Amino acid sequence: MSTTLPCFRSRWTTPAPAHVRELAADAGLPAGFRAAGVACGIKPTGNPDVGIVVCDTDQCTSAVRYTVTGTPAAPVLVSRERCTPHTLRAALANSGCANAATGARGMEDAALTQAAAAVALGIAPAQVVLGSTGAISWYLPVERMLQGIDAAAAELSREGDRDFQRAIETTDAVEKRANLELELPSGRVRLSAQCKGAGMISPRFATMLCFIETDAALEPATADLLLGVCVKRSFERCSVDGQLSTNDTVVLMCSGASGVRVAPESEDELRFGEALDALLRALAIMMVADGEGAGRIARAVVRGGDAHGVEAAARAVANSPLVKTALHGADSNWGRLIQAVGAALPGTAPLPVDLAIDGIAVCSAGAAVDFDQEALARAVQGDELEYEITLPGDGAETELFFSDLGHEYVRINAEYTT
Amino acid sequence: MSTTLPCFRSRWTTPAPAHVRELAADAGLPAGFRAAGVACGIKPTGNPDVGIVVCDTDQCTSAVRYTVTGTPAAPVLVSRERCTPHTLRAALANSGCANAATGARGMEDAALTQAAAAVALGIAPAQVVLGSTGAISWYLPVERMLQGIDAAAAELSREGDRDFQRAIETTDAVEKRANLELELPSGRVRLSAQCKGAGMISPRFATMLCFIETDAALEPATADLLLGVCVKRSFERCSVDGQLSTNDTVVLMCSGASGVRVAPESEDELRFGEALDALLRALAIMMVADGEGAGRIARAVVRGGDAHGVEAAARAVANSPLVKTALHGADSNWGRLIQAVGAALPGTAPLPVDLAIDGIAVCSAGAAVDFDQEALARAVQGDELEYEITLPGDGAETELFFSDLGHEYVRINAEYTT
Repeated sequence: MSTTLPCFRSRWTTPAPAHVRELAADAGLPAGFRAAGVACGIKPTGNPDVGIVVCDTDQCTSAVRYTVTGTPAAPVLVSRERCTPHTLRAALANSGCANAATGARGMEDAALTQAAAAVALGIAPAQVVLGSTGAISWYLPVERMLQGIDAAAAELSREGDRDFQRAIETTDAVEKRANLELELPSGRVRLSAQCKGAGMISPRFATMLCFIETDAALEPATADLLLGVCVKRSFERCSVDGQLSTNDTVVLMCSGASGVRVAPESEDELRFGEALDALLRALAIMMVADGEGAGRIARAVVRGGDAHGVEAAARAVANSPLVKTALHGADSNWGRLIQAVGAALPGTAPLPVDLAIDGIAVCSAGAAVDFDQEALARAVQGDELEYEITLPGDGAETELFFSDLGHEYVRINAEYTT
Repeated sequence: MSTTLPCFRSRWTTPAPAHVRELAADAGLPAGFRAAGVACGIKPTGNPDVGIVVCDTDQCTSAVRYTVTGTPAAPVLVSRERCTPHTLRAALANSGCANAATGARGMEDAALTQAAAAVALGIAPAQVVLGSTGAISWYLPVERMLQGIDAAAAELSREGDRDFQRAIETTDAVEKRANLELELPSGRVRLSAQCKGAGMISPRFATMLCFIETDAALEPATADLLLGVCVKRSFERCSVDGQLSTNDTVVLMCSGASGVRVAPESEDELRFGEALDALLRALAIMMVADGEGAGRIARAVVRGGDAHGVEAAARAVANSPLVKTALHGADSNWGRLIQAVGAALPGTAPLPVDLAIDGIAVCSAGAAVDFDQEALARAVQGDELEYEITLPGDGAETELFFSDLGHEYVRINAEYTT
C-alpha cells in the first residue's frame, strides 16, 4: 500500500500558485463525482485491482490523451475507436493486467468490460473510457472483472477516490493523488486527480494512467486545450526509464456541479490552467520520484541550440544509464553528462557545451573549469539535483525530470513476472 | 587482470571461416610489428596503463575510424587533425584517463605525448595515432605519460601484444585479443587485434579502442574499404548501455612484411575481408559478453519494414532497461519487447509485429499465441538468446548484439569515480 504525501513538495513545484490550496487526503472528490475501488482477484496479492470513477451530471465535458506507441493495448484501441472524447462520463480502470499484445480477443474483452460498466452506471459505452495497467501479454480475466465492476458500482461514493487510487497502483510506493481547491475570479472550484506510474515511464502525449476531475464547467474545447498544454509541460517532460508504455492514458472530466463557468480566454481560464499545470507537474515529479527503486531525482535544463538539439540532449542525459547510476551513487562524475550530450549531437565536434550542477559551473565551452570540489560533493548528495546544460546559440530551452538507476530498479524488473 | 578465452566461441561466430585459424594467445604479433605495455602510474592500482604498438616497415598502410560524438576527447581531435590516416605507423594508448572535456590544455597534452612517442620511435608525429580511455574530465598526467612512453619504447617486442592489451583495459574482465593465421590464395598471412571496452559501449563508426595488425600488404584504399565495411557489421551492431563514447577509435595497420599482396577485387581481398569480418564480429560479441556486469547476451534480429524502422526497433529493444533486466533475470516477460518496438515506431498502431525467442513463436500479428511455456522458460536461461522480430513489409533486415542489465552494472557505475 502506498504512502500519502503532500502534492506540492518538490523544489520545482513550491510554492504552489497563490490561488491553489491543497486539501486533506480524505477531502473527497469534486461535486458531481463518485468513485470506488475493489479487489476482484486479478492481482494475486488480493489488493484492490478494479476501480470506477463516474460523473453524475448530464452536462459533463471531458478531454483525453492516449499513448502514441505503435503497439497500444486493447483498452487504448477500444477507447480510441468507440469513445466520444468530449463527453466521457466514467473511467473503468484495472491493475494487474495491461491487456496488451492480446489481439482480437483482448479487444473483445475490453469492449465487454466497457459495456458492463456502462450498464452498471446507466450511461452509454461510448462514455466509458478504459485504463489497464500491469503485465503485458496476459489476457484479462473477464469473469472476475465483471464481478468487480458490479461490486465497485455498488460502492461508489464521493470519498471513493482513495480506493480508486489503490485499484490502479502496481509498483507505486507513494500515492500520486491530490485534492485541490481553486479560487477563481468567478468562484471557488475543486480539482482532483488520481495517477499511477513507477516504471515504463517516458510518456509521449500522456502518462501511465491519470484521472482528473473538476466541478468547474468547461467547454470541451477549453478542456482539450488546457489538458493538451499541461500534459506537454508535465508528463511529457519526465522519464523513469525512457520506456513509452502501451497503456498511457490521461483523462479530464468536468462535472460543472460547482456552477462556476470557466469561459474561453477569461481570467478564470488562465487561473484554472495555472492550477492544472501546477497539479500535473507535481504529479509528474511525484511519478519520477517514485520511479522504480528511485532514491534521487534530477532536472536537466538545456538551453541554446535549436528545438531538436535541446530535446535530443535532454533525453540523452535523462535516459543515460551512466548518468543515472552516477546520480544514484551521489557521484560527481559529470563527464558522463558531456558524453551523453555529445552522443546526442553527432557532427557538431568540438561542441562548446557548458554544464553547471546545482549552480556550480564545472564545464565551460567543452572544457573542465576550476570549481569547489567539496561544494559539488555536497550538492550531489541532495534529493533533487539540477543540471544546467548550455549549447551554442540561443534559440531553444527545455527541461526533463528523471530518476536515478539503482539496484532496486534491477531487482524489481529482473523479478517482475517470475 | 582479464581472462584469456578463444576468440570464436559464441553461437554467432562459430564456426570461423575455413581459411582462418586461431593461434595461441602467446603467438605474438604479425611480422613487422612490435608492442609493449607498462605501468606509469596513471592508474592508482599500479596496473599497466600506457602502451605502444608500432610497425617497423616503411611500406606500412593503414585505415582508421573515430567516434562521431559531438564531444570527442582530445586524443581523437588531435589524431583527426594531425594524423595521415593511410600512413599510420604506431598507436600510443593509455588507460586510466580519457583526456576528454579537457579543452585546449587537453589538446596540448595529447599533442605533446604524440610528439614524444614519435621521437622515441623515430617516426613522424603524423604517423602516431592516439587512444585514451578512462574517466572523463581529468587531465592527462603528462610527466608520467612521458616516462611511460620511454619505458614502453625500450620494451617493444613481437610478443608485447599481451602487455599492450593490459595497458588499454579498464573494467574489462575478459581479454579481447586474437592472433589469427589466414590461408589466402596468394599465401599465408597473420592478423591480430587488441581491443578494449566494457561500458559506455554503443559505437557508431568505431568501437572503444581496437588496434588491428596484419603482415599482409594492402593498398590504403583496400584497408579503408575493408575496415569501413567490417566496422559497420561488428562494432556498430553492438550495445552494452547505448552510450556512445567520447574516445572510440579503431585502427588497422598493414606491415606488408609477409610479402603477400591483397590486391583490390581479388580472391585474396575477399578472403582477407571474410577473416577481418569474422574477427571484428567476434571481438564485438566478446565486448558485449564482457559488458559491465553482463551475465547473459542476446541478438535482436529485426526483419521487414524499412531501414529506418528495423534500426529504430533493434536499438529500442537493445537499449531498453526493461528488456535488459528481464534478460538478466531469465524472465520470459516478452511483452517488454513488444513495448519497446511499439515505442520506437509511433503512429503505426496497431502494429502487426511477430516475435520469436530462440525459435519459439510467442507473438503473431501483435497478439500472444499459444506456445510451450516450459520450453521458453528453459530457453531464456541460456547464455546467448536470440530475439527474432518481424515487422510488416519485406524491405530491410538488421541485427544488434546486446548485454543484460544487472546489479553489477549498477554497482560498477555508481561507484566508478568515488
